[in-house]
Amino acid sequence: MSYPSSISPIRWENNRLILLDQRYLPLKHDDYVCATLEQAAQGIADLVVRGAPAIGITAAYAVYLGYQQHKQNVNYDFTAALEGLINARPTAVNLAWAVEQQKALLNTDQADLSQQLLDNAKRIHQQDLDDNIKMGDFGANLIDSGSRVVTHCNAGALATAGYGTALGVIRSAWSEEKLDQIFASETRPWLQGLRLTAWELAEDKIPVTVIVEGAVSSLFNRKKIDWVIVGSDRICANGDVINKVGTCNQAIMARHYGVKVMVAAPTSTIDMNTQSGDLVDIENRSDSEILAQNYPDNELVSAWNPVFDVTPAALVSAIVTEKGVVLQPDKDKMLALMSSK
Amino acid sequence: MSYPSSISPIRWENNRLILLDQRYLPLKHDDYVCATLEQAAQGIADLVVRGAPAIGITAAYAVYLGYQQHKQNVNYDFTAALEGLINARPTAVNLAWAVEQQKALLNTDQADLSQQLLDNAKRIHQQDLDDNIKMGDFGANLIDSGSRVVTHCNAGALATAGYGTALGVIRSAWSEEKLDQIFASETRPWLQGLRLTAWELAEDKIPVTVIVEGAVSSLFNRKKIDWVIVGSDRICANGDVINKVGTCNQAIMARHYGVKVMVAAPTSTIDMNTQSGDLVDIENRSDSEILAQNYPDNELVSAWNPVFDVTPAALVSAIVTEKGVVLQPDKDKMLALMSSK
Repeated sequence: MSYPSSISPIRWENNRLILLDQRYLPLKHDDYVCATLEQAAQGIADLVVRGAPAIGITAAYAVYLGYQQHKQNVNYDFTAALEGLINARPTAVNLAWAVEQQKALLNTDQADLSQQLLDNAKRIHQQDLDDNIKMGDFGANLIDSGSRVVTHCNAGALATAGYGTALGVIRSAWSEEKLDQIFASETRPWLQGLRLTAWELAEDKIPVTVIVEGAVSSLFNRKKIDWVIVGSDRICANGDVINKVGTCNQAIMARHYGVKVMVAAPTSTIDMNTQSGDLVDIENRSDSEILAQNYPDNELVSAWNPVFDVTPAALVSAIVTEKGVVLQPDKDKMLALMSSK
Repeated sequence: MSYPSSISPIRWENNRLILLDQRYLPLKHDDYVCATLEQAAQGIADLVVRGAPAIGITAAYAVYLGYQQHKQNVNYDFTAALEGLINARPTAVNLAWAVEQQKALLNTDQADLSQQLLDNAKRIHQQDLDDNIKMGDFGANLIDSGSRVVTHCNAGALATAGYGTALGVIRSAWSEEKLDQIFASETRPWLQGLRLTAWELAEDKIPVTVIVEGAVSSLFNRKKIDWVIVGSDRICANGDVINKVGTCNQAIMARHYGVKVMVAAPTSTIDMNTQSGDLVDIENRSDSEILAQNYPDNELVSAWNPVFDVTPAALVSAIVTEKGVVLQPDKDKMLALMSSK
């Protein structure tokens, strides 16, 4: 059973891609308008839009915008633009996946290619929403009544077409009245948990309690948490999960305290070409995201700012996709899932 | 070997207690002047001064200030003022310890009691500095050359008389050229790691790299960390360690990755009257420290803000005090330490 979300982070209006600018939520609700592929790529790089599925949808529309630019200007280097788009964020696989989906169309030579690219972007957009609702149901089925859950970062409506992967499961479980309390870890340095997850749940009338990441051990120890529920930016062929930095922390502590870990992600997030998590390029972002204005020109103070981590498959209780659930994931089970209809 | 710190967080000047206001470091270096016990208690409650040993020293001077008020005003309720002082922060044991030290003097009826209270505060102040340097040496002896360490929150010069417990060990090990790299976790919500630890190490020309708490698992996994080195607000009779929330997170992950955990604290932090960590009153602070200005009047969004956690003795490799080191602490070893000269 789905619990509709009121939030649409990505809209297509008047031949423009409109992104809800997530950098200033919940204090400001601004739109970021993309008329070109480059504007969309910059929006992805600058975290106007984030979350692996939402980045994929944005990229699909961006390819259409780039094709229009290419048609109108023979000097436009479309190939380089596509390369720049894929490199806007290196870790999430959905970005490259969506661009490849569009490239497959580009390689055909159809008369109505322009319309087909736009239709395909809209199809990817709608498909994500449909898949989220399926995942919501699959995930909620794993949750017992009266459960307490914690989620990290934002794998919600804002990270997808508009329902959420981890938060889709939470929305569905909430609609079935299975959840006693929902916690969100604030997720430094960008505070996606505080600013985005808490905001979108509250917008949909779902109560949420925010904690700092440092309180996760206390939470598990004192609040009888049943599930950690997170999304993913890339799942490897062996079931290793790449997600927002801090996810593996929670998985290790979950194992220590006997809490289960659910990863909800569409199969477009599963990268069967990467055998394990240690092979994934983990994006490092700027020191300034952590140091802020505190140490200008002080070369004694630096920061290390990897923005994703690798949770080994052995620490994951369940991977929930639109095609079904994999319990205690491993290479064989992931292959079986991806080979199924 | 000690590595002198240039930082004096607590000064006694012209019959006034001068605290370096730690709320706005490193951007502003303001003094907070206490002429009364109440001003000192408010400074403790508001985190002008923090860190268990520094709170204890502050409280010792505050009792002297209160005694002066008492002498000059017969309507002044000194007993209530002392009670208020002890309750300014409930978790750290050094606060009550220092007040009890002064109370023992108050119960004598000596002619020069005023001078004795001031001398005793100065003695507690100096003793803490001496003890820090001893701990620094004991702790550094446990560290191999070429080690990488991480510390949490601020257990440094700013948290003590001016050398530090955890950062005292790090200063001493640095002076012996044993440290390859020092990491500090930023420590939300007050960012003591980012604002205080990084600042005081840089002031003393020691390089430091800041991470978000979410990156601890990645740090252990990818940066070959040897030691977590932290201070403590209270150590129980069985060796359980109360410290800044997030400490137990690091200890659990340290066990997972084979990293050792060192807790450096003076014996005034050891509370032999509390048998284990689950019996300690853990201070919860305001939601607003986490939510900031984001959700005014939104009753759907709350925060849970415990500011300390309990690390079980079983996860601690070494407790370092001015009286010596306890490896793999337990009840018997703690009793032996406290019974020794």
